Amino acid sequence: MSKEITSRKEDYSQWYNDLILKGSLADYSAVRGCMVIKPYGFALWENMRDQLDRMFKETGHVNAYFPLFIPKSFLTKEAAHVEGFAKECAVVTHYRLKMDPDGSGIIVDPEAKLEEELIVRPTSETIIWNTYRTWIQSYRDLPLLINQWANVVRWEMRTRLFLRTTEFLWQEGHTAHANSEEAIAETLQMLNIYAELAENYLALPVIKGIKSESERFAGAVETYCVEALMQDGKALQAGTSHFLGQNFARAFDVKFSDRDNKLDYVWASSWGVSTRLIGALVMAHSDDDGLVLPPKIAPLQAVIIPIYKGNERKEQLDAKGREFFAKLKSAGIRVKFDDNDNARPGWKFAEYEMKGVPVRIALGLRDLENNTVEIVRRDTKEKMNISMDGLVEEVVRLMDEIQLYMYNKALLFREAHITATDSWVEFEKLLEEKGGFISAHWDGTAETETAIKEKTQATIRCIPLDNPKEIGKCILTGKPSIQRVLFARAY
Amino acid sequence: MSKEITSRKEDYSQWYNDLILKGSLADYSAVRGCMVIKPYGFALWENMRDQLDRMFKETGHVNAYFPLFIPKSFLTKEAAHVEGFAKECAVVTHYRLKMDPDGSGIIVDPEAKLEEELIVRPTSETIIWNTYRTWIQSYRDLPLLINQWANVVRWEMRTRLFLRTTEFLWQEGHTAHANSEEAIAETLQMLNIYAELAENYLALPVIKGIKSESERFAGAVETYCVEALMQDGKALQAGTSHFLGQNFARAFDVKFSDRDNKLDYVWASSWGVSTRLIGALVMAHSDDDGLVLPPKIAPLQAVIIPIYKGNERKEQLDAKGREFFAKLKSAGIRVKFDDNDNARPGWKFAEYEMKGVPVRIALGLRDLENNTVEIVRRDTKEKMNISMDGLVEEVVRLMDEIQLYMYNKALLFREAHITATDSWVEFEKLLEEKGGFISAHWDGTAETETAIKEKTQATIRCIPLDNPKEIGKCILTGKPSIQRVLFARAY
Repeated sequence: MSKEITSRKEDYSQWYNDLILKGSLADYSAVRGCMVIKPYGFALWENMRDQLDRMFKETGHVNAYFPLFIPKSFLTKEAAHVEGFAKECAVVTHYRLKMDPDGSGIIVDPEAKLEEELIVRPTSETIIWNTYRTWIQSYRDLPLLINQWANVVRWEMRTRLFLRTTEFLWQEGHTAHANSEEAIAETLQMLNIYAELAENYLALPVIKGIKSESERFAGAVETYCVEALMQDGKALQAGTSHFLGQNFARAFDVKFSDRDNKLDYVWASSWGVSTRLIGALVMAHSDDDGLVLPPKIAPLQAVIIPIYKGNERKEQLDAKGREFFAKLKSAGIRVKFDDNDNARPGWKFAEYEMKGVPVRIALGLRDLENNTVEIVRRDTKEKMNISMDGLVEEVVRLMDEIQLYMYNKALLFREAHITATDSWVEFEKLLEEKGGFISAHWDGTAETETAIKEKTQATIRCIPLDNPKEIGKCILTGKPSIQRVLFARAY
Repeated sequence: MSKEITSRKEDYSQWYNDLILKGSLADYSAVRGCMVIKPYGFALWENMRDQLDRMFKETGHVNAYFPLFIPKSFLTKEAAHVEGFAKECAVVTHYRLKMDPDGSGIIVDPEAKLEEELIVRPTSETIIWNTYRTWIQSYRDLPLLINQWANVVRWEMRTRLFLRTTEFLWQEGHTAHANSEEAIAETLQMLNIYAELAENYLALPVIKGIKSESERFAGAVETYCVEALMQDGKALQAGTSHFLGQNFARAFDVKFSDRDNKLDYVWASSWGVSTRLIGALVMAHSDDDGLVLPPKIAPLQAVIIPIYKGNERKEQLDAKGREFFAKLKSAGIRVKFDDNDNARPGWKFAEYEMKGVPVRIALGLRDLENNTVEIVRRDTKEKMNISMDGLVEEVVRLMDEIQLYMYNKALLFREAHITATDSWVEFEKLLEEKGGFISAHWDGTAETETAIKEKTQATIRCIPLDNPKEIGKCILTGKPSIQRVLFARAY
């Protein structure tokens, strides 16, 4: 099984594709750039979604659902938004098919042309703010704290499973507030929730920061982000939260009367994470034998594999396996007892290793004699023989331990891959040889940012929220700079 | 509040729209035929979805996600399916917008025309069976028990909030089996799950039955359905489950090798329910004062309203309200303590009545004296004064009682509206004056079914699963018939 996976060293990108396909997370589809999320991959998404949805609701948000389609003219209403999003979109122009009169199949009915084309939503600020106009009249209607779980479409030219697909699943929060302070506080609150999901559930340390102007969401006043680091030293944006100021309220004429009966435009935030997080999860933790999944998010946390020798004491093995299954399940562990006797234990070991199941429990004839079981951790591959009596406790304990170990390992890697430099030569060399984040001075201009990107493919990932001010000289131009920013090549 | 609702007697259809809009379940959108599902309506959908998803998983199903788009040619592959679905569809023809060279806005880039048009899925059998071809080789890969929660689009000419919208949310199950018996058993199992959702959660009695050939799903061998009755005497199809035979496997060439290494086409089922159920829920139970929601599905099950008299003992009222809130919450009740002092109690009463909250708890100064509270049931409007000490128990008890009462009320109404007749004159009269299901003989031909529909707008809703065989004469043609079937006008 594992031998079919390309190693990271050999071809990181192929290794990633192998894991996604052979780990049964997703599959290519008949539609260019769109993927099929397979049940195992979807279960990962469900686990992330459930945690996020809980955190959204705990902070007072509610879910709603807005139309898939956006009238073309809506995209032009916010000046910056049109630049960012009225580009590579799926455009619905007709609403009917008919049989070809020549009998050869079906054709688009030319008489069923829409007066105004509809765009399949690339993001929903426009349709939502057009709706908010009728929902908001007074400060009593605020804040409006709404989230939507939805599919969106951006016609990407180069796609990669999970990381960049034409259609993807995400959540998009769209909130409305009576003043800017509250909207900014909301923007930061949601950024913290994304960081919590990444760090506490995906075991993925992230850096919270602000985007430079050129990386800002089209229509935002400020874009906040959480940035993660992958094993190949490239960064990955794991979530964004935007303070939109009054831009969309102005564009869609959404005003409210305040406590003094004065009319003002409404303040806004929007924020989202997507199925891209599954790609991040895979690339951050997995190894050359397959996926390595953090227990809190793993669809299956433990698997029990009986080692049959023909029919020798098979009933006893099965009974013990079922007993452990029941005990682990009632201890809250997502567990499977794999008693399929069509497959050999070795094949099963490789299969569950491939799928990243955190703990494997093997149960053989000798174990019955000795009252023991063999446990193997997926993350460290450590093998332990323990007493049957302590199995449940040990597995429960391992869930926490593996979760923490994975986080710490990723954190150590990330910390070892933030390198400060003041030399352009070293900057280029670091990008080529070491990768990771490079902390360097920047003169604050978009021109310099573009020039650095053209020379090195590195972009400014973010200006960390807790960034110390420090006088220095721009890594490229030598012009004055007031702080370091984090550069990296990125997904 | 309630005065703004049109009465059922006056205009049933307007009454329904008033409830949806004023009950904050949904809103019209800027896109023709598409609605916005508002937070309160979406919470209803979440509650239905959570119950269904649990039942799906308990019966071994897993969730996955397939592309939104279907290549046009896929729709033509199954002969009956093309007739049913290659009609009113949203068609994506282009993948890019650009600035109009004349500077007036954005236009569709004529150079970005797709080679093959993409259809926004009206249902996903085709794209899913095209995928299953690569997933299924052997009987070991079967059964495949997959469900998808998704949005679908059917370009309806006449739309109604929830009941018939261009875009709607649903779940669609698509299963693959090694033989027809298993596929039929699955089809029936899912029908039973739909009946369980309707009856035990929505308090909506349903008749399980088989559709006549002309009402069958396009591509199915047999369509099973659950049919409910609305208060105006019209029927509403609340869910369908299809035995697809080998039709889609043939169309997409999905074969498997059985235990004897013989190749055969795979057997299939598909099944779905949609946000239409929210419309059914509203129309079945509500009254002229607003929504009436069954406790198991109600987003809010109880509300506590303090009756302030200025500031007199306000702190005590609030403390008691918060105490009950905490107690009810920990007893598992979805409860709200509405201490907003901008609104009068009377306004709040009308508001929660409108929203169908099953139990209202009012708490006034006299209650503090007497150690009592006032409870009002939304369904019967019965008012009770009970001791504070028994409040939590009583509310918990009422949840079951209201649920049962609502079901029984709907069941009595349904039973009183199944009328058998052997006379065509009476058949027409019943439809005009009484409504409901009419149990009548039918000669089994599509011609007669069409003729009856043209004369009366009534269709065959179903042939009940437990239908007794009975020799008789067709209600319209007088030709021989072997059983009665259920006719009704329907949504």
